[in-house]
Amino acid sequence: MAPLIAPIAKRKNIVIVGAGFGGLAAAQALAEAHADITVIDRRNFHLFQPLLYQVATAALSPADISAPIRSVLRRQANAHVMLDKVTGIDREKRVVLTEGRRAVPFDYLVLATGARHSYFGRDDWAPFAPGIKTLDDATRLRARILLAFERAELETDPAARRALLTFVVIGAGPTGVELAGSIAELARKSVTRDFRSIAPGDMTVVLIEAGPRILPSFRENLAQAAAQSLEEMGVTLRLAQPVTEVTAHTVTISGRVLPAATIIWAAGVKASAAGRWLGAETDRAGRVKVGPDFTTAGEPDIFVIGDTAACVDEGGKALPGVAPAAKQAGAWVGKLIAARLASTREPKPFRYRDKGAMATIGRKSAVVDLGRIRLTGGAGWLLWSAAHVWFLIGFRNRFSVATSWLWSYLTWERGARLITGQEIARARAPDIPIRQQDAA
Amino acid sequence: MAPLIAPIAKRKNIVIVGAGFGGLAAAQALAEAHADITVIDRRNFHLFQPLLYQVATAALSPADISAPIRSVLRRQANAHVMLDKVTGIDREKRVVLTEGRRAVPFDYLVLATGARHSYFGRDDWAPFAPGIKTLDDATRLRARILLAFERAELETDPAARRALLTFVVIGAGPTGVELAGSIAELARKSVTRDFRSIAPGDMTVVLIEAGPRILPSFRENLAQAAAQSLEEMGVTLRLAQPVTEVTAHTVTISGRVLPAATIIWAAGVKASAAGRWLGAETDRAGRVKVGPDFTTAGEPDIFVIGDTAACVDEGGKALPGVAPAAKQAGAWVGKLIAARLASTREPKPFRYRDKGAMATIGRKSAVVDLGRIRLTGGAGWLLWSAAHVWFLIGFRNRFSVATSWLWSYLTWERGARLITGQEIARARAPDIPIRQQDAA
Repeated sequence: MAPLIAPIAKRKNIVIVGAGFGGLAAAQALAEAHADITVIDRRNFHLFQPLLYQVATAALSPADISAPIRSVLRRQANAHVMLDKVTGIDREKRVVLTEGRRAVPFDYLVLATGARHSYFGRDDWAPFAPGIKTLDDATRLRARILLAFERAELETDPAARRALLTFVVIGAGPTGVELAGSIAELARKSVTRDFRSIAPGDMTVVLIEAGPRILPSFRENLAQAAAQSLEEMGVTLRLAQPVTEVTAHTVTISGRVLPAATIIWAAGVKASAAGRWLGAETDRAGRVKVGPDFTTAGEPDIFVIGDTAACVDEGGKALPGVAPAAKQAGAWVGKLIAARLASTREPKPFRYRDKGAMATIGRKSAVVDLGRIRLTGGAGWLLWSAAHVWFLIGFRNRFSVATSWLWSYLTWERGARLITGQEIARARAPDIPIRQQDAA
Repeated sequence: MAPLIAPIAKRKNIVIVGAGFGGLAAAQALAEAHADITVIDRRNFHLFQPLLYQVATAALSPADISAPIRSVLRRQANAHVMLDKVTGIDREKRVVLTEGRRAVPFDYLVLATGARHSYFGRDDWAPFAPGIKTLDDATRLRARILLAFERAELETDPAARRALLTFVVIGAGPTGVELAGSIAELARKSVTRDFRSIAPGDMTVVLIEAGPRILPSFRENLAQAAAQSLEEMGVTLRLAQPVTEVTAHTVTISGRVLPAATIIWAAGVKASAAGRWLGAETDRAGRVKVGPDFTTAGEPDIFVIGDTAACVDEGGKALPGVAPAAKQAGAWVGKLIAARLASTREPKPFRYRDKGAMATIGRKSAVVDLGRIRLTGGAGWLLWSAAHVWFLIGFRNRFSVATSWLWSYLTWERGARLITGQEIARARAPDIPIRQQDAA
């Protein structure tokens, strides 16, 4: 006799590693799936990375640009959050291995572990020229920038003072441009009025780019407008000049040594360890080479998305390492898995929809390229602000960021100007321009 | 021949060490003085210490309760801010010595360097039972509390899980009471709905007090009301029970060993090093014994105020270690110095005006004792909130705190629930209840 009811399929396990834009989009696309979803991240919060530079330059607080992962997924009953660090994947046993000595079983696996900085083989530069990828990076950089002003205020030697007031940003993609603009603004407007001995003209902000122009991913005329805005704000551009050496307190470009207390790296990224975990083929930047369905050869149930994947979509377009690309990939992969679980029709092949690019230059200007709509200056800034507030996850953050920005716009006040994580102000000795250990 | 104009007196140097409530009040009282004021602090911000427990329990962000010292004194032209750590005082040469190898000359010196925790001779307990006096203390404690929940969520061993969900606060003064209430609230309302496996009943919050009752500085009936509110919120009170041992994961009281992953110290304070710098007589808590004019024997130009001084005013009243006392002392000393500089009439002898005391118990209740006005419950909470928002230095912070509180009141949302400064979630092994190194 045939059973009266069909046997109920065992709930499948879907593991998503990384709660960035890609990972969360995948989890949310699986909201209705009859499955157990486990989101593993080594931090307890989702970070709105595109605004990290505003934390580094004391315009926003860490809490403004982050949301606890548990809060984001609170109403999604099939989602579980695990705070742990993934150390490897056992493809045979179909488990994800963690530092907390767990083995998390999966039927489907989504790897969305992002990227770190790349120093192009010069990892010895890392302590001298930190980048910003995490909140801790940003608050450390904030302390470093603010301490440079504090030291300059008390410095009597002109050369040492000049070095303390020189800020060098290496790399003129969107992050580098936004950082340089934001530092110039912090320096010239909000900070100098707080210090008795620092005048706006004492400051130097240098943006270095190995390529021939800033914002290579933008149209030429928009990049031109951005370059002009930066120069009006007092940023010195050094284009087509690769950096040949970085030390604790100098940058060498074109054979010239530039003394600077604050050097920031915005030049390159390197994918996370996902490629190593899988033993998969990677590109030069360590990204896993995936097909247009985000899988690697022979593993139809393992997906790699976002900054940690090198993907060319069905239309032959290479996906850029930006939040919208990660989100679209995550949502598509989530829908694909949901369709397979429910045995319904799979989504159409993935095509990346380029919604355009934006970069802000200080508080009065931005360049926005949405294809048909191209804006520069104040109109660009307004659209940029609206878009960023809108995309911040969680209404509370939206509200808080909006009030912070409005306040800062109206008053030039910087709300988050705290040097934390530093028990002691390491005031420097007059004879050593910048102490070695400060860079550590 | 006599000179046509009288010789102009050299501007005097006034050095204020510490930009807490006392130091800032002194600087501000000297706003009109014909003198150079140097405020030295090892941090670049003033901290609203009474609300630190709200940062530790993720209700407020660090920036909400701090203001850059330079911003606070921006409009005071005679005030200079120096970020440095004082290491000593040379009374002969009349200079303050700093870690940055500076020797800052003074004609008048105000020491307002505050206090740290005291473990009553058991400094070995410090790593296991941290207190909160600084922002870094508070964010570390926040990470510890939130990590305990994260670990409990994944824990399968019942005893280890119980220990992870046990929070012990040692000391039932205002800080201990406010901490215990705030943790109970964080746990029972905001956190448990984010975790799949933690129910409000799984949590234990224990408030331990060696004395016979909580809030010894409050009237008996108000303390009684506060105790009742705490118990209604689920806090277990252990009164008249001194702690005899603290380890990384246990507290021993009355011979019983209580396993707990989170132990917080709110029991005692110890004055800063000012007494040692001066070689002055100190009391048991390390506070400099000063006369009713805040000077020590033989040094009419050196003043010690706030938590680092033991002072009995003209009326015979001992000053408590609270913000209003420090503020009143700072303002009085500032006025005294200003009068001496201008050779005008000195202020009347100092008398401490006790404006009352407040303590909050969670978001729905507070005890307020203003002498004639005594409130408990919701009315107390409203007055408490209004007073704290009002006294926060700087309008921006007031605005931000007000919106944060309103938001949190309406939604039970906690805006600042981030585990920062922790690259990795140290997930614990099942066989070790709480790893030794977690306490470090």
